[in-house]
Amino acid sequence: MSEVVRFGVSIPQELLNTFNRLIARKGYANRSEALRDMIRSHLVAEEWELGARPVIGTITLVYSHGTRELEQALTKMQHDWCRHILSALHIHLDKHNCLEVLVVKGKSREIRSLADRLIAVRGVKHGEMSMTTLGKDLV
Amino acid sequence: MSEVVRFGVSIPQELLNTFNRLIARKGYANRSEALRDMIRSHLVAEEWELGARPVIGTITLVYSHGTRELEQALTKMQHDWCRHILSALHIHLDKHNCLEVLVVKGKSREIRSLADRLIAVRGVKHGEMSMTTLGKDLV
Amino acid sequence: MSEVVRFGVSIPQELLNTFNRLIARKGYANRSEALRDMIRSHLVAEEWELGARPVIGTITLVYSHGTRELEQALTKMQHDWCRHILSALHIHLDKHNCLEVLVVKGKSREIRSLADRLIAVRGVKHGEMSMTTLGKDLV
Amino acid sequence: MSEVVRFGVSIPQELLNTFNRLIARKGYANRSEALRDMIRSHLVAEEWELGARPVIGTITLVYSHGTRELEQALTKMQHDWCRHILSALHIHLDKHNCLEVLVVKGKSREIRSLADRLIAVRGVKHGEMSMTTLGKDLV
Repeated sequence: MSEVVRFGVSIPQELLNTFNRLIARKGYANRSEALRDMIRSHLVAEEWELGARPVIGTITLVYSHGTRELEQALTKMQHDWCRHILSALHIHLDKHNCLEVLVVKGKSREIRSLADRLIAVRGVKHGEMSMTTLGKDLV
Repeated sequence: MSEVVRFGVSIPQELLNTFNRLIARKGYANRSEALRDMIRSHLVAEEWELGARPVIGTITLVYSHGTRELEQALTKMQHDWCRHILSALHIHLDKHNCLEVLVVKGKSREIRSLADRLIAVRGVKHGEMSMTTLGKDLV
Repeated sequence: MSEVVRFGVSIPQELLNTFNRLIARKGYANRSEALRDMIRSHLVAEEWELGARPVIGTITLVYSHGTRELEQALTKMQHDWCRHILSALHIHLDKHNCLEVLVVKGKSREIRSLADRLIAVRGVKHGEMSMTTLGKDLV
Repeated sequence: MSEVVRFGVSIPQELLNTFNRLIARKGYANRSEALRDMIRSHLVAEEWELGARPVIGTITLVYSHGTRELEQALTKMQHDWCRHILSALHIHLDKHNCLEVLVVKGKSREIRSLADRLIAVRGVKHGEMSMTTLGKDLV
């Protein structure tokens, strides 16, 4: 655990008032937590851009399980990339549609490439990648 | 299943060549699938913007389980919103850090508000919302 | 001019160190200015999302002036929306290609709609909308 | 001018119907133009990501001209980067606030760095970078 320190921010009164209203709407209990969150978001974006260290993220896929050979294709691809896929969660959306969330870890370039490849599979209707952090360097 | 139809696209030869190279890099087997994916992405973005029909998405949180009262706060909030949270997947990143993915369903405004509130909890280091679709209207 | 006040932020030492390195790389002279910028960015995003008050932005178009009837179409559309277009800047990129930046003002929905319509014109190769603020409420 | 060719896309009827409604709302005269625009947008995003060739973009700044030494700082910085700044457009928003749009050209990394530096100047209330293309390779 890192020691907690305190620093001062100077800010026009009006800007502070507007900011206070914004973070209240978002449900923050206090201003320091809102500011720490903004700071951490910028650091995570930078981690993904620099691409030097492993990052973690999710890839969400929506597909119809009826599509011919789709499931085999997705399963094979996931096994080929098993070093990068930590876990998968499956939701049966309705009779035909499935949602699958993969938690993935690796260099940001590799994860983007895996996401591209999964989304490109015929029968995958929609895919989204979401980027977060291993948290270790983000106290 | 909707009937498959075919339509023609006119395009300059050079633009087509560059596009063919792009989709090969992304792993598409054929051009129609790449174009259907682009079309579906635009439709999902529109669904979220219009906000009329329920959408589905994920909220990914990274937090350190050591933080005081964090787990109780997250659990309580998830139960308050249980109608919107279909499922949750938890990964133990290291001794201290956890990653949790919630699959969420509802009006886009509600889901954004839930994401805001979860990310605002003290001890949540990073959060990301990812938007996708129920797939029903997206053949 | 709004009175400048000062408030304290508590933050783990390590997170502060990483943040200090980030803002140095981005060229900030001091931490307060970096934090005020983050705060203002969130407020501008919110202004555009809420859509209640007029906002300001730019629409950038790249097109080839050779395309048949393109210039007339763009000119006519700009005059139809002249209440929303404050000014336009034109760059001759090469023999064929033009870049035009429009500074636009209005409700965010109207501006998005104008951008959609301009980008949809045949011969416009690429278009981008960029959102900013009138600055009045952003001290 | 590149020769125009034609290729066929197979698509479920329902997806095509929804897509037709979307592009009508956005003001497209025909489907080919909408698809060419989607294709070109992906190519521009890729150009910026790869960073190999020069790209073009805009940097929009909102600032209050009253801020001490702000104008000198912005002018000096713009001259230091004059090779990258093709042109600038200035709008007097109200008694205090200015909007300035710079059209910038260079490697995507350089342009991002210039944008970071301009936005970091004390007194700049908000800044946005918008990415487009020189158009040459985008018929």
